Amino acid sequence: MLDAVLTELAEHGYDGLTMDAVAARAGAHRATVYRRWGDVGGLLADVLDAAGEDDWQPPDTGSLEGDLAALNHEIQDALTAQPPIMAALIAASFRSEKADHAQRRLWEDRYARCEAVVGRAAERGELPPRTDARRLLIAATAPLYHQLVLLRTPPDPDLPGQAARAASLAAAAGAFTGPPPAGDA
Amino acid sequence: MLDAVLTELAEHGYDGLTMDAVAARAGAHRATVYRRWGDVGGLLADVLDAAGEDDWQPPDTGSLEGDLAALNHEIQDALTAQPPIMAALIAASFRSEKADHAQRRLWEDRYARCEAVVGRAAERGELPPRTDARRLLIAATAPLYHQLVLLRTPPDPDLPGQAARAASLAAAAGAFTGPPPAGDA
Repeated sequence: MLDAVLTELAEHGYDGLTMDAVAARAGAHRATVYRRWGDVGGLLADVLDAAGEDDWQPPDTGSLEGDLAALNHEIQDALTAQPPIMAALIAASFRSEKADHAQRRLWEDRYARCEAVVGRAAERGELPPRTDARRLLIAATAPLYHQLVLLRTPPDPDLPGQAARAASLAAAAGAFTGPPPAGDA
Repeated sequence: MLDAVLTELAEHGYDGLTMDAVAARAGAHRATVYRRWGDVGGLLADVLDAAGEDDWQPPDTGSLEGDLAALNHEIQDALTAQPPIMAALIAASFRSEKADHAQRRLWEDRYARCEAVVGRAAERGELPPRTDARRLLIAATAPLYHQLVLLRTPPDPDLPGQAARAASLAAAAGAFTGPPPAGDA
């Protein structure tokens, strides 16, 4: 069923995605599909939740910049894949509240897993104390999303590495350190 | 007419935006509206193109980090304004090719104007030689768009300044310098 949703979404986009077409493609009864998923947003939310139920782990290359560059390459590949599943799911998140919430759950889960990259870098002594993992990860990955999803510039093979390097340099310079813990003042 | 589009868009979103409602609100003849703009995408493209025909200039605070922080505050304010005009226009750019192209023209124009910020910083000696203005500007502003438009996190009053500081530190460390000009090798 979820494969049928992805195929329909890739072929027709959100506007062409219908419960009936998904049911037909999956060989399921219309009534069953409506009862279980309610609407297209429910189907998309299940697709997104299922995507999060994998054992994906962030790259482990031995350096912060290397890990972030490898991560950014994965993001660029996903955002420019054909058929454009990830791009279609992001677009759908502007249309359906259920898809929006599921998309946010998926990103939250992915960023949480990526915090391991920052933890390893801290253990290797690559980062100043109290570096905020999430802020660093957002800074490293945001240019990819901004260029490919919003500005819609053609993919630039140098961008994943450049964005990783910029975030690593900023992190080393203390851009993502938080205030000292309470009591230190 | 363009005010009527914005009001309808803010009140009803893209899905509720119709040529007839815009014509009625503007007190215009339906036939005139259809003849001139063709469809909702045409109306939105005109709104976006009109938004670019202003004399907006980027902030000039005397420092790179200050300029980028002020710029990011403007972006955060625009993205979180009520009614959510900018957010609705970005969402519409996923639906209409005309709106998409106009949104891209507007961003291109804005980023081109912002290159003055980087030019001034270079003149003040704040940047290494051959710093790429566009890459620096994208790095500075992307976290705002990523957090507010895609991740849809609540606005963080510290984010504009933090993103500006991270990009400034990365720029000073040489993150956005290009290769030497041909002939120097």
